[in-house]
Amino acid sequence: MNPGDRVRVDRDDRTYEGVLLPSSSDEHLVVKLEGGYNVGVDRAEADVDVLAEDVYEIDGKDSVGDEASEIAFDDDLPTISLISTGGTIASTVDYRTGAVTAQFDAEDVLRAVPDLAGRANYRGRVVANILSENMEPPIWQDLAEAVREEIEAGVDGVVVMHGTDTMQYSASALAFMLETPVPVVFTGSQRSADRPSSDNVMNAVCAVEAAKSDCAEVLVCMHGSESDDVCALHRGTRVRKNHTSRRDAFETVGAEPLGLIDYETEALTWNRDYQERGAVDLDLVSGLESDVELLKFTPGMDPAFLDVVEGSEGLIIEGTGLGHVHTDLIPRIEDLIDDGTTVVMTSQCLEGRVCDRVYDTGRDLLDAGVIEAGDTLPGTAKVKLMWALENADDVEAAMGTSLAGELQERSVPWE
Amino acid sequence: MNPGDRVRVDRDDRTYEGVLLPSSSDEHLVVKLEGGYNVGVDRAEADVDVLAEDVYEIDGKDSVGDEASEIAFDDDLPTISLISTGGTIASTVDYRTGAVTAQFDAEDVLRAVPDLAGRANYRGRVVANILSENMEPPIWQDLAEAVREEIEAGVDGVVVMHGTDTMQYSASALAFMLETPVPVVFTGSQRSADRPSSDNVMNAVCAVEAAKSDCAEVLVCMHGSESDDVCALHRGTRVRKNHTSRRDAFETVGAEPLGLIDYETEALTWNRDYQERGAVDLDLVSGLESDVELLKFTPGMDPAFLDVVEGSEGLIIEGTGLGHVHTDLIPRIEDLIDDGTTVVMTSQCLEGRVCDRVYDTGRDLLDAGVIEAGDTLPGTAKVKLMWALENADDVEAAMGTSLAGELQERSVPWE
Repeated sequence: MNPGDRVRVDRDDRTYEGVLLPSSSDEHLVVKLEGGYNVGVDRAEADVDVLAEDVYEIDGKDSVGDEASEIAFDDDLPTISLISTGGTIASTVDYRTGAVTAQFDAEDVLRAVPDLAGRANYRGRVVANILSENMEPPIWQDLAEAVREEIEAGVDGVVVMHGTDTMQYSASALAFMLETPVPVVFTGSQRSADRPSSDNVMNAVCAVEAAKSDCAEVLVCMHGSESDDVCALHRGTRVRKNHTSRRDAFETVGAEPLGLIDYETEALTWNRDYQERGAVDLDLVSGLESDVELLKFTPGMDPAFLDVVEGSEGLIIEGTGLGHVHTDLIPRIEDLIDDGTTVVMTSQCLEGRVCDRVYDTGRDLLDAGVIEAGDTLPGTAKVKLMWALENADDVEAAMGTSLAGELQERSVPWE
Repeated sequence: MNPGDRVRVDRDDRTYEGVLLPSSSDEHLVVKLEGGYNVGVDRAEADVDVLAEDVYEIDGKDSVGDEASEIAFDDDLPTISLISTGGTIASTVDYRTGAVTAQFDAEDVLRAVPDLAGRANYRGRVVANILSENMEPPIWQDLAEAVREEIEAGVDGVVVMHGTDTMQYSASALAFMLETPVPVVFTGSQRSADRPSSDNVMNAVCAVEAAKSDCAEVLVCMHGSESDDVCALHRGTRVRKNHTSRRDAFETVGAEPLGLIDYETEALTWNRDYQERGAVDLDLVSGLESDVELLKFTPGMDPAFLDVVEGSEGLIIEGTGLGHVHTDLIPRIEDLIDDGTTVVMTSQCLEGRVCDRVYDTGRDLLDAGVIEAGDTLPGTAKVKLMWALENADDVEAAMGTSLAGELQERSVPWE
């Protein structure tokens, strides 16, 4: 048997049928199943039957080639740019360690998800190949620049494949940096492609459909339920990964998602108004002040954490309740502000607005010069402050204004 | 007119009828309405009619006295201890500043909530009178000691009145410190007693009912919906304030609350098993290692935050996804561990277990000696580590074992 053969593999009580792929390990077989899943099988435990030889020509990139005809340019289809940054959706299992590492580029993803064929013409591009916990602000800038170039080249929408750990931060960054006349849709995968429960095919398909839609915003498209029935479309600035492992981990905080896509019918439904395709001209303002920190206050916190921020340009505090910290910290915060650090209050409650006019502690924080971020999520507020410090004339006014849908709740309910 | 008179106050198009209370301001009248609400009215704008003089005798504590007869000891009723720590439920508006400050003790709360009468015999006790953002570990110890003494004195249940900002941390602390044969129920208020929408009466009443119940756990009792129909009972270690201002801000993360109380019928319903009254003997282990910090990782975080923790006994990391940080931080974390700091991983996703066996980054963290906290909430994990470092023989084993209901989800769903 050789890579490219169609094979049936029996191991224990399971049978896999598909195309044998090259494997980076002598100990494992890798089989590409129908529907784009790859499965790894211990060679020693497997019985293999070759059903047909040389079904696919394997190219030098260790992937199933010769599918270009499926994605030949079609004048009747929109053109979507697929930009890869790494993450589970672009990863396979590393059989050396048993863990998942990122090693695909956008072209590989396209080949790994045949269901994408026929939906659009595609352009592929790799901006990074990292696990998303290693995402850093300079890569947000590279990514935004790549998106700008793709839109300038005339694509009808952009799909960004991104690890799920920090997707919400990257989506927020692009939402603040870009004015976009076309959809920019982040998607990823909570389960790698070799798992039977992988969400990579459905998420990628729904993301392409969203990128073809009329909603010209920076969106996150991920499973909207535990089933394979619907993907949710979230505003990049309001979304949060709220579960470590569930496929429907991503939620719009404090509201329904902006929209839904039915996987079977491809029907889109929208819960709120959105910015329509072509409503704004393309613009990119990608400057970021990197010297911004986020600090979560908890009882008993060592005030020395504030010393780390001394001389920094910005600090997001994740306070308690309506936006509080231990009152002993307020003079130190006032010193920071007097020394030029912009300090912004958010709440670890996540839902609801901060409101520092209600209690003494809050009023003292306002007197010290702390800026309120409304109901902006703490992580989003960090990204926004990085952007605002570099680009806004009036940072306080900017933090109190919704620039990209990040401010959702307009009032404290009992006001 | 004098304090103690029954009055009718007209201001604009509103009419208030109740008992005039002493006011700390010459500019405002304070009227105790039926049902326990206090309302403040600008004296200059108010028309006042005295309906009856000297209806209540006002004692030196500026509260409505002579209600002791209503709460005389009744052999047929259980005895509940009300312990006050401060917070909105024990506060009135400070008319000097327009903000809310804590100034009531437990006796005042009892008098302010006549609806509590007839439900139990009460003992009142003040452990602290602070806003809950100023709560600190030594006060948790004082509170736990007070609860122990009350239970030793024979009460049938304990209600702890606490500010909502840090209630979840304090409830966790008591859950780890106490083995209790009776219910210990935290309650508080999201809206102060002078607001028409105050939740203080219903929460206090439901907390007393919960303290009379068969559930001998450390619970949080707060509004379970936006209406005044039902209170939810949450395990202290699994509850989180998830909204800055809503009355039903408190939620059991990732599950239904442990139980519900119907406000009208006082009927209790339970969603899961609980520890029954008398199942364990009273025990208090209140030692805490105070040198434990919590650090939330976000993209672009300054690694210098880890320097603050150098030499500390413990560190909780709020990582991304399944429990990750930027891989550049791993050697620094390993150094911390080698120097004796216990480092525990939780997830900022809040729902779902950390699982550092899936990805390279996680495996490297485990190799560095990081301990996983399962699906323990980050704030709860901080409190637990403080307790475990002082009292557990094997801290790693303790962090992986549910000591007080803090570990809820047993497996990553796709394992």
